[in-house]
Amino acid sequence: MSKSSTVTVREKPVQDVASATAGGLIIHGETFVVQTDQRVEVIDLTNRVMEFARRFNIREGLISLWSMHTTCALFINEFQSALIDDLKGLIERLVPERGGYRHDDPRFSDCERGNAHAHLRAALLGRNIAVGLVNGELSLGRFQSVIFAELDGPRKREITVQILGA
Amino acid sequence: MSKSSTVTVREKPVQDVASATAGGLIIHGETFVVQTDQRVEVIDLTNRVMEFARRFNIREGLISLWSMHTTCALFINEFQSALIDDLKGLIERLVPERGGYRHDDPRFSDCERGNAHAHLRAALLGRNIAVGLVNGELSLGRFQSVIFAELDGPRKREITVQILGA
Amino acid sequence: MSKSSTVTVREKPVQDVASATAGGLIIHGETFVVQTDQRVEVIDLTNRVMEFARRFNIREGLISLWSMHTTCALFINEFQSALIDDLKGLIERLVPERGGYRHDDPRFSDCERGNAHAHLRAALLGRNIAVGLVNGELSLGRFQSVIFAELDGPRKREITVQILGA
Repeated sequence: MSKSSTVTVREKPVQDVASATAGGLIIHGETFVVQTDQRVEVIDLTNRVMEFARRFNIREGLISLWSMHTTCALFINEFQSALIDDLKGLIERLVPERGGYRHDDPRFSDCERGNAHAHLRAALLGRNIAVGLVNGELSLGRFQSVIFAELDGPRKREITVQILGA
Repeated sequence: MSKSSTVTVREKPVQDVASATAGGLIIHGETFVVQTDQRVEVIDLTNRVMEFARRFNIREGLISLWSMHTTCALFINEFQSALIDDLKGLIERLVPERGGYRHDDPRFSDCERGNAHAHLRAALLGRNIAVGLVNGELSLGRFQSVIFAELDGPRKREITVQILGA
Repeated sequence: MSKSSTVTVREKPVQDVASATAGGLIIHGETFVVQTDQRVEVIDLTNRVMEFARRFNIREGLISLWSMHTTCALFINEFQSALIDDLKGLIERLVPERGGYRHDDPRFSDCERGNAHAHLRAALLGRNIAVGLVNGELSLGRFQSVIFAELDGPRKREITVQILGA
């Protein structure tokens, strides 16, 4: 392998919104844009996902969210200030910002951001979540929030969101 | 952010069972209840998922399971006593029960359970799994089991399970 | 629990290819075989997933990949040589190959491969990914690749891949 990354190239430009129907089933995708202000920032997307779901008259189905980036994460947990601090502390302890990473070393990598820690933290936290729609409600418990974590900001980030159901 | 959690509120009460069909596609959701007896407890749900799948005449599709809680986990791995002990050892080493967490400190948090470690362990292990149905069989290898991990028990836990297919 | 694993038994033999349609919706599953050559090996599956997707005239939908094994992983990240080295370094640091695991000890386990570390690393990295199809394109950002990690090779590995959409 070279110093460079393999790049995934789309054949067509991304469209903002795309839908299909099949025998009463609706599949609809679009992009959430998130502008982050901090280097590490944790954002609650639950209301945005709920509003998205309500626009469709879907009772049973699936909502998927995919981060389009390799240095941020999507996951479900409790959104509480102190717990978010603990989560930041955990990932800093497991994956320190300066860890002598080869991805941050110009001898081995053409990446100039010094963000190996952000890639590795994203690998532990995950970049994709799915939430069910059951009887018209999201499969989220009372203390569950849909959480986006910026790990190498500030940046403009894109999340693909898709609803599939009937 | 305050000391309190953001709470996700359903508009409608949860129903036990909900189904839709669309052009031959079936989407059906319901709740698995799991009563745990231990503080940390690992339970094999494979047979229960298989029995659930067999009730529908679905050959191709998707089964999703979502934990409705933030202090337990769902994942796929080998269900063997010694390996489960190793997994408990790993999460205790990576995320100690007493780690000076702010979520456990009344100055920063209104949570009285002292369960920050359980939230953080759940974040590493995951709370959602999907299993495919291909030719009427679950996409599980010979040594793969569907595993539920209680991380802050004993408690009564709910898992939303959904089958989608034709 | 005994020293042995619980084994998940299929009722029917696996078929190579299986499809269903429902009101214009297509659900199609098959198996990717990956032959690994190294003990730990990281392979970019992005082109293979893209070629699979192009065989179907599906604009909106979902592609799922499931590892059928408990000692390898599937995830999305940047595929760059130096970063892959950093990822190998991270999992070796968090889950050392020799960690005094009970799964590797004949007093507690009938497993003769000494591969507890590979199971535990797979639990942290994940064994299932989903990629969206939106307007005929995979929901992958420019630096995102679909990555398979062999953690206990060399072996012949199977990945179940399913496309669902219209």
